[in-house]
Amino acid sequence: MTERVVLAFSGGLDTSVAIPYLAEQTGGEVIAVALDVGQGGEDMEVIRQRALDCGAAESVVVDARDEFAQDFCLPALRANALYMDRYPLVSALSRPLIVKHLVEAAKQHGGTIVSHGCTGKGNDQVRFEVGIGALDPSLKVIAPARDFAWTRDKAIALAEEKGLPIEVSAKSPYSIDQNLWGRAVETGFLEDIWNGPIEDIYSYTQDPAVQRDPDEVVITFDRGNPVAIDGETVTPLQAIAELNRRAGAQGVGRLDMVEDRLVGIKSREVYEAPGAIALITAHQELENVTVERDLARFKRGVDQRWAELVYDGLWFSPLKYALDSFIDSAQEAVSGDVRLTLHGGRAVVTGRRSEASLYDFGMATYDTGDTFDQSLAKGFVQLWGLPSRMAAARDNRLQGH
Amino acid sequence: MTERVVLAFSGGLDTSVAIPYLAEQTGGEVIAVALDVGQGGEDMEVIRQRALDCGAAESVVVDARDEFAQDFCLPALRANALYMDRYPLVSALSRPLIVKHLVEAAKQHGGTIVSHGCTGKGNDQVRFEVGIGALDPSLKVIAPARDFAWTRDKAIALAEEKGLPIEVSAKSPYSIDQNLWGRAVETGFLEDIWNGPIEDIYSYTQDPAVQRDPDEVVITFDRGNPVAIDGETVTPLQAIAELNRRAGAQGVGRLDMVEDRLVGIKSREVYEAPGAIALITAHQELENVTVERDLARFKRGVDQRWAELVYDGLWFSPLKYALDSFIDSAQEAVSGDVRLTLHGGRAVVTGRRSEASLYDFGMATYDTGDTFDQSLAKGFVQLWGLPSRMAAARDNRLQGH
Amino acid sequence: MTERVVLAFSGGLDTSVAIPYLAEQTGGEVIAVALDVGQGGEDMEVIRQRALDCGAAESVVVDARDEFAQDFCLPALRANALYMDRYPLVSALSRPLIVKHLVEAAKQHGGTIVSHGCTGKGNDQVRFEVGIGALDPSLKVIAPARDFAWTRDKAIALAEEKGLPIEVSAKSPYSIDQNLWGRAVETGFLEDIWNGPIEDIYSYTQDPAVQRDPDEVVITFDRGNPVAIDGETVTPLQAIAELNRRAGAQGVGRLDMVEDRLVGIKSREVYEAPGAIALITAHQELENVTVERDLARFKRGVDQRWAELVYDGLWFSPLKYALDSFIDSAQEAVSGDVRLTLHGGRAVVTGRRSEASLYDFGMATYDTGDTFDQSLAKGFVQLWGLPSRMAAARDNRLQGH
Amino acid sequence: MTERVVLAFSGGLDTSVAIPYLAEQTGGEVIAVALDVGQGGEDMEVIRQRALDCGAAESVVVDARDEFAQDFCLPALRANALYMDRYPLVSALSRPLIVKHLVEAAKQHGGTIVSHGCTGKGNDQVRFEVGIGALDPSLKVIAPARDFAWTRDKAIALAEEKGLPIEVSAKSPYSIDQNLWGRAVETGFLEDIWNGPIEDIYSYTQDPAVQRDPDEVVITFDRGNPVAIDGETVTPLQAIAELNRRAGAQGVGRLDMVEDRLVGIKSREVYEAPGAIALITAHQELENVTVERDLARFKRGVDQRWAELVYDGLWFSPLKYALDSFIDSAQEAVSGDVRLTLHGGRAVVTGRRSEASLYDFGMATYDTGDTFDQSLAKGFVQLWGLPSRMAAARDNRLQGH
Repeated sequence: MTERVVLAFSGGLDTSVAIPYLAEQTGGEVIAVALDVGQGGEDMEVIRQRALDCGAAESVVVDARDEFAQDFCLPALRANALYMDRYPLVSALSRPLIVKHLVEAAKQHGGTIVSHGCTGKGNDQVRFEVGIGALDPSLKVIAPARDFAWTRDKAIALAEEKGLPIEVSAKSPYSIDQNLWGRAVETGFLEDIWNGPIEDIYSYTQDPAVQRDPDEVVITFDRGNPVAIDGETVTPLQAIAELNRRAGAQGVGRLDMVEDRLVGIKSREVYEAPGAIALITAHQELENVTVERDLARFKRGVDQRWAELVYDGLWFSPLKYALDSFIDSAQEAVSGDVRLTLHGGRAVVTGRRSEASLYDFGMATYDTGDTFDQSLAKGFVQLWGLPSRMAAARDNRLQGH
Repeated sequence: MTERVVLAFSGGLDTSVAIPYLAEQTGGEVIAVALDVGQGGEDMEVIRQRALDCGAAESVVVDARDEFAQDFCLPALRANALYMDRYPLVSALSRPLIVKHLVEAAKQHGGTIVSHGCTGKGNDQVRFEVGIGALDPSLKVIAPARDFAWTRDKAIALAEEKGLPIEVSAKSPYSIDQNLWGRAVETGFLEDIWNGPIEDIYSYTQDPAVQRDPDEVVITFDRGNPVAIDGETVTPLQAIAELNRRAGAQGVGRLDMVEDRLVGIKSREVYEAPGAIALITAHQELENVTVERDLARFKRGVDQRWAELVYDGLWFSPLKYALDSFIDSAQEAVSGDVRLTLHGGRAVVTGRRSEASLYDFGMATYDTGDTFDQSLAKGFVQLWGLPSRMAAARDNRLQGH
Repeated sequence: MTERVVLAFSGGLDTSVAIPYLAEQTGGEVIAVALDVGQGGEDMEVIRQRALDCGAAESVVVDARDEFAQDFCLPALRANALYMDRYPLVSALSRPLIVKHLVEAAKQHGGTIVSHGCTGKGNDQVRFEVGIGALDPSLKVIAPARDFAWTRDKAIALAEEKGLPIEVSAKSPYSIDQNLWGRAVETGFLEDIWNGPIEDIYSYTQDPAVQRDPDEVVITFDRGNPVAIDGETVTPLQAIAELNRRAGAQGVGRLDMVEDRLVGIKSREVYEAPGAIALITAHQELENVTVERDLARFKRGVDQRWAELVYDGLWFSPLKYALDSFIDSAQEAVSGDVRLTLHGGRAVVTGRRSEASLYDFGMATYDTGDTFDQSLAKGFVQLWGLPSRMAAARDNRLQGH
Repeated sequence: MTERVVLAFSGGLDTSVAIPYLAEQTGGEVIAVALDVGQGGEDMEVIRQRALDCGAAESVVVDARDEFAQDFCLPALRANALYMDRYPLVSALSRPLIVKHLVEAAKQHGGTIVSHGCTGKGNDQVRFEVGIGALDPSLKVIAPARDFAWTRDKAIALAEEKGLPIEVSAKSPYSIDQNLWGRAVETGFLEDIWNGPIEDIYSYTQDPAVQRDPDEVVITFDRGNPVAIDGETVTPLQAIAELNRRAGAQGVGRLDMVEDRLVGIKSREVYEAPGAIALITAHQELENVTVERDLARFKRGVDQRWAELVYDGLWFSPLKYALDSFIDSAQEAVSGDVRLTLHGGRAVVTGRRSEASLYDFGMATYDTGDTFDQSLAKGFVQLWGLPSRMAAARDNRLQGH
């Protein structure tokens, strides 16, 4: 029987050329699978047809935007997922979704090999291959760019040789990955980490330094998930898209950092994630209002580990699942409204209200209506400090004071 | 022998009235101790004299600004100390310093009692009393506001009765604590957490929404400590003061949050900390460049615990000391320059350079000069994902797939 | 309406005397509530009658042994709960169960006050009162031994004065708390921590030094819970009881330690928990076989925090609930058999087998049948060590080597 | 210039054959380096000569026992290092020491390649290569067993072909690694994890089930290090050796577990570590007595991470160094005596005493002399439980109770 190769197809040069190349190398047929995860750009039907034109036996396109928003972006939001306290996991979130559809396509179309376009020094190869291994360990993986040391020039030569219907444009100086949750940019001049980014590289966000009127938005959460914006009910996809638009228009969500890759090197990355940053900012503050202190303190460590695991390609892993269970429990009461002002590159919380609030005016106020019994404090303070007081007394004694 | 009471003296109404009150209650003498921790306001000599005018047996003022910067603010910077990922520990840092000087004054002047002006529902009582207990467990503590249920009206009545030389101004609507590292504001209308702050409450920062030219600054760090600004060598005090001025002028460092107090309640707090936020932003990015990945990941948890301990009044505690040792080790290589743009309320890193950088252009680049051996990746990816792949295979097998 | 006081009634001197005392102090009626949590000793009916004889308006006894085993001991087992890596939380587990029944009795019988016999320097007061506050914050609490500074002599005098039907035996030198999960002993001569325990203080365990034949037992777990012993299906209560008997007969489960109490002091404690220690030993090893590595590593921290929370009286707390969710997820595959040899005070695992095992003979063996691809190792080793290698190269360079 | 290969030489078949093999493969000279890390067995001089007889250009033997005890075993003791709460890191501790000497030998003898005998599925290859890379990244590594897929049969054939002076004994069924800190055994029949170990495989420990008299030992620690046994001053090496002897004679320290290897598989391991287990048991209890509660709780996580890092081959890593700093700080007060009874396979603490003790009889006792002020407890309990009480009240309110 003919071997079938399921290819993660983007429509670009590399994966287009990969179609005849994989067919030749494996003697099999190629099934191209392209996902709309909110990356914008070309029409999905055009992409579908291009795969066929390049010789794919089957070409599948999936509108996965709602699924991506619901099952990948929202869990990241509930985890306040910021790798290294900064990066909201843009690419790291789409990879497991793509993997899921590749594995499904392999089942449906009898694929035994899966192929992706990643290189050998990035994180995405790990996310693809660990994910595929977790969902179907019987699948083999080919990564032409890594395993056969492809370069752009080789790919162009191959395209010409095969007469593929691909317009080879001038090489863009930017390497970009974008989806609903944000956009990542790498480019040569940023590899000197003393160079600052230039306005030209941004697409999801306007220049925050330009003077414009602020935008105020009220986001309503239900158990950690955004369910309404300014009082209008929204789907997860709508919530993220609208906040990308409104926060992006105010220059919110630009990030520039040196990042620890899983493969052991540091790299310079520039991101834009206006909706993600606005949502996480609001969500964190709603947690401040509704989550009990000990739980909130422990959850910071859980959130950090969640982000590391997903960054490290371990979306489909037992620890990730167990952390999800913890986080779901912690979100039980994270419901209510947060008011944000979006302006000048900042998303600033100015108000919060919740039926589930643990903020108690009577306990907090210093004015009339104070219900806090201050007489309890003395005993608390004494016993709270007892261990360190005894240790200090011991240390003083031993040091002969 | 006459009992002597060492009083943490601010110069304000409450602690002024406390002088005759404590003398009366204890039948002893009062030693007033006032510290300059960069809070600005009245001249320290005026404050010193006022204590004597109110009947203090001794009145001591200490310019503790350099000590505060060096021994309290810089450790917080090295720990990127942000309680709840937000609050840079303004008041929590000055309390242990004040405690240290109170205990020293007690030793010097024969004090057996220490007194402070805190109430029973705040964090500061804990910081004072746990600190005093750690440094000298033999000292007794009196907190008139808490232990004798003082109110402002009672204090005013007492001031008049005693004929104290205090101008009783109209009650300010704001309760403020400020020092070199920042400024905290509480006020009645913010106790409704749906209300936003108004421009009137800020003092360290200009309105970030006002159009002005950006300011670019290069901060040089040596082992985690700022040592030069724009190439000029600075003391810790100078570094913080200059960044307060320059970042404050750009509206950087405003914070508005609901916070978990140690005494078990949530409160609304507004802070300004322009210098602290600018320094921490720069320091974090320099760590991204110079600290090895595993160390960086673990340090986040250490930093969080450090901030919690200090917030919780445990500056003088064995765990705090051990975390300091960890952090000092982690700062060995945190030396280099960070360039920040201060503008519109944002402190944005645009460049970093360091002799100790772990960023390796050759490893990171996708262009000419790439030294990363991509052939190593396949084995890494396979073994990295092996445990989750085996777990997934097990789960699939058991679920009959 | 007459106030009603719900009293946690043990049948002993203190809580017996508390009945008329509480009635007098509050002018109300006393509802005595006694639970069988496997503590043995007097018949529950005798205890029930004694409360009435002492003047209780109502006397309730509850056989809570199955509930204790199922809902309190098993969660502790799934968490491998050992406070300070040693103490399996004997008393800390029964307190929240008792609290639950006290609050239920208050609802049923119209109680507005709850009373317990704990002193002010132990952990149990915290567990009672934090638990009661969590389940019904409207209930008031009276702790006569703490709040009215009772002593044993005062209690005896009161008993005689009231003519209560209590035999006042010679004071036992031991203070004991025991239940299904174990037994705690405190006594004067152990307060010198250089003194070793004597054989006389033990009751659940035989002397491990006595020569006897070993006992071998196979425990079957399903998702972390023991469901069969030597192939016979058992209830949770039966599992624990049988292992108490068999492991106790071999001297397993004696503990002697200095412990950090929540109230800030260190105390000397001696425990016996034969069944708990045998079950936890077996459970931990089954986790070694069935739980994926990253999950196992993270779960150690979760287990530690779970034990601390429960020790600290926070059974009914949001963080505890969220940790339970994590642990339940982590137990999905913890099913299989463990064979233990019980002998000479040791519970030693000698075999484990599981349908859900992640141990793979083919991967592990060095003999024929090896399926591990060693060629993958080199790339893994290189990239695994890359960050520390780069850091070392940097350090060497900076130190001028 | 002739290339020189520094070989980690054990004296056994594989590394003996490696000498001519490496010379042939590289066209260079082999420098054999053998360390005495307390593994016993052959005389080091015999080993040194054998390397020469096999063709080594240089043969170096090092008595590294004191260095191993001082710089590798004692840090593990201070960290209570037990991987997976069980395994005291026997082999994982000796590898970085061997690496250190290999790198030194390379410097001294002009070596450019380092060679070791590890296979590709164990942990030791990682420990060797990551360590070498950290200490001298310019060194190349050859692992014949892994890189050239050697088997025992191939090695024997080579030995015969070369006429090497090695007695090829009948293959031992056991694969053993042993040193001062313990002994690891792997063997075919234990690869069935349902099989129990047999008496035959043990060497450091006597059968614990045999009846014999108990042995009592008092260990004196100074800042976490053992400095005297039964009052006699000892070196680190003497301390460990004597406890190996005495605890081993009582059957203490046998371990049998399924373990998570770094390369991603689970393996069955049997260990003996009588001295290590006795010392760690004593050390942990002395920490219970002398370390403040918060520090003790945090240190458990530090200890776990330390053990994982060292197990994972990251001895020479920035995180390991920072954890060492934390641990050193935490050991400041860990001085005093612990009395252990060694008997029947158990090492049981029966007494502890310390000038630095935080156990305070007056605070702990329920008898005459009680200095604990119980009146402080009520306030403490109330505020301690306030967050969970408020959360419970909120949950009840929202659920309509």
